[in-house]
Amino acid sequence: MKDNMVKTFQEEREKLNRLISEYAGKEIKRFLNLDSQVYRDDILPARTKEMMGLVASLVLRCDDCIRYHLIKCHENGITSAELEEIIAVSLIVGGSITIPHIRRAFAFWRELTGTA
Amino acid sequence: MKDNMVKTFQEEREKLNRLISEYAGKEIKRFLNLDSQVYRDDILPARTKEMMGLVASLVLRCDDCIRYHLIKCHENGITSAELEEIIAVSLIVGGSITIPHIRRAFAFWRELTGTA
Amino acid sequence: MKDNMVKTFQEEREKLNRLISEYAGKEIKRFLNLDSQVYRDDILPARTKEMMGLVASLVLRCDDCIRYHLIKCHENGITSAELEEIIAVSLIVGGSITIPHIRRAFAFWRELTGTA
Amino acid sequence: MKDNMVKTFQEEREKLNRLISEYAGKEIKRFLNLDSQVYRDDILPARTKEMMGLVASLVLRCDDCIRYHLIKCHENGITSAELEEIIAVSLIVGGSITIPHIRRAFAFWRELTGTA
Amino acid sequence: MKDNMVKTFQEEREKLNRLISEYAGKEIKRFLNLDSQVYRDDILPARTKEMMGLVASLVLRCDDCIRYHLIKCHENGITSAELEEIIAVSLIVGGSITIPHIRRAFAFWRELTGTA
Amino acid sequence: MKDNMVKTFQEEREKLNRLISEYAGKEIKRFLNLDSQVYRDDILPARTKEMMGLVASLVLRCDDCIRYHLIKCHENGITSAELEEIIAVSLIVGGSITIPHIRRAFAFWRELTGTA
Repeated sequence: MKDNMVKTFQEEREKLNRLISEYAGKEIKRFLNLDSQVYRDDILPARTKEMMGLVASLVLRCDDCIRYHLIKCHENGITSAELEEIIAVSLIVGGSITIPHIRRAFAFWRELTGTA
Repeated sequence: MKDNMVKTFQEEREKLNRLISEYAGKEIKRFLNLDSQVYRDDILPARTKEMMGLVASLVLRCDDCIRYHLIKCHENGITSAELEEIIAVSLIVGGSITIPHIRRAFAFWRELTGTA
Repeated sequence: MKDNMVKTFQEEREKLNRLISEYAGKEIKRFLNLDSQVYRDDILPARTKEMMGLVASLVLRCDDCIRYHLIKCHENGITSAELEEIIAVSLIVGGSITIPHIRRAFAFWRELTGTA
Repeated sequence: MKDNMVKTFQEEREKLNRLISEYAGKEIKRFLNLDSQVYRDDILPARTKEMMGLVASLVLRCDDCIRYHLIKCHENGITSAELEEIIAVSLIVGGSITIPHIRRAFAFWRELTGTA
Repeated sequence: MKDNMVKTFQEEREKLNRLISEYAGKEIKRFLNLDSQVYRDDILPARTKEMMGLVASLVLRCDDCIRYHLIKCHENGITSAELEEIIAVSLIVGGSITIPHIRRAFAFWRELTGTA
Repeated sequence: MKDNMVKTFQEEREKLNRLISEYAGKEIKRFLNLDSQVYRDDILPARTKEMMGLVASLVLRCDDCIRYHLIKCHENGITSAELEEIIAVSLIVGGSITIPHIRRAFAFWRELTGTA
């Protein structure tokens, strides 16, 4: 059973994305379009790109971005052992200032993987 | 009717500002003073300066700062169409990592403008 | 009496630290180890190092890190007058974008010192 | 006479832009396209958008971005008195950590405006 | 033939690393040790971890870190087509503020791959 | 004998500070004033405040700010052993992305202390 944290995140995200769509002009729409295209399977697999998106989100310390990429990593079959290494790299690059985000990332992951 | 998000933000902000005042010494007080002076009408109008404050807050990704400048932009007659362009510039400069803040900015703006 | 904000923070932090421990491999564990060693009394006293940890957390704008170092500063006997100067330096270096974090830091400190 | 700093910057920038074009695939090209469109005259004039681009570059502390927007601000007729206010806002938001970039910004501006 | 930019970078880096070693105490040495261990082949291959190190360096905008990971990516057989996609993801996440670093990254890569 | 790196830094800094003074209006001047006052001896000694300024500069990764505070730390009698601990804290908080700045900080310090 998926827990509340994941569901709440996804519902809130969808609601606010609809809101962006209402306000967005041509440039914002094009950017959002690009933002989804850039993670697609191409020379590098989507799986690798989602890992990269997660690393970027961790070192830039954005919880919502981290959650989004954790969901995509999970959908792309990334394992808990792989996640641990992604987080280790991010922690070493970004330092202890990333720890609160890492704590919340593991809590979210635990819900995602149903091991809570 | 103004919604809860705006009112809650303003009340919380005032309460905490009173708290800063209690603790603040000479330097902090001078800085806070400067912080309000710098947005005043002078060579550039306050309206333009509030737009600049909003852009800075968006690319530095500070929700409370974004909300404060959204309120000031609204008071200075900035329209939703203008806001959309301010956000487009901020999004292009700051990248997808700013998107969660932009989502929340539009939700706050909608309340401010009474179109929720 | 210690207020809820401090207690809630500490309980949440401990719960999530246990979660990190479950997932953490060798590198993450070593980093967390280093992270506690680096603030110990050595050439510089722990007290000075906790002040430095607080300044770093303030300019990097991480509320959880700020709270953690406020607790450690309090345990190391840092006074409200000293805190005010630490925050003044951080505010001048980091600019008005740090103000929302400073507001929350003073609110947390007030609870810690029982002057709320 | 335009000084060396401006000319060197522009030549280097053009050379490296040609290099990006050689490597860039579809997504990078689209982003670069968006990056030039977003500053065009629309609801807000290009002049205002260039000021916003400059503020964003200053608080994010990117010298090359600052120089690029200083050139565009100059082309859009922004005066030294206006620039001073743009920089004052950026300094208050971004703090003393922006000062080295502000020093270099004024040096570049002086060359641009031929008052060196 | 490797060009000057790469050789100069590596010589400067080695010289300064020797300098760090002279000053470094136990904690700094342990961190540097961790920093090299975390990119080793384990559950995820070193190749993937170097890509992640590059993404982190790009979005955090550190030229020296970018150069170091470009060298490691090249040693791990990453192709120019793969690099282009790594950079595309970093650009979308980090925004136009990363462009000057991307320009310099491609210039460095061109030297590394001998296609200058 | 003081080496070139320190002398060059100080001369460049003074030249550019004179340039800021020419352009600066009331708010920028007040900020620069505050920026020097905040490090003065008060409840906390200048020596401690300079250490805090150095930590802030290291984690925010500004080479010029680091150099300025290294000079001030040296003037305030901070030893190489103390500097090593200041840097260790900064490295743990800020992560490996700070390493290139730490390398340059030690090179500058070596010149300052005449041990080059």
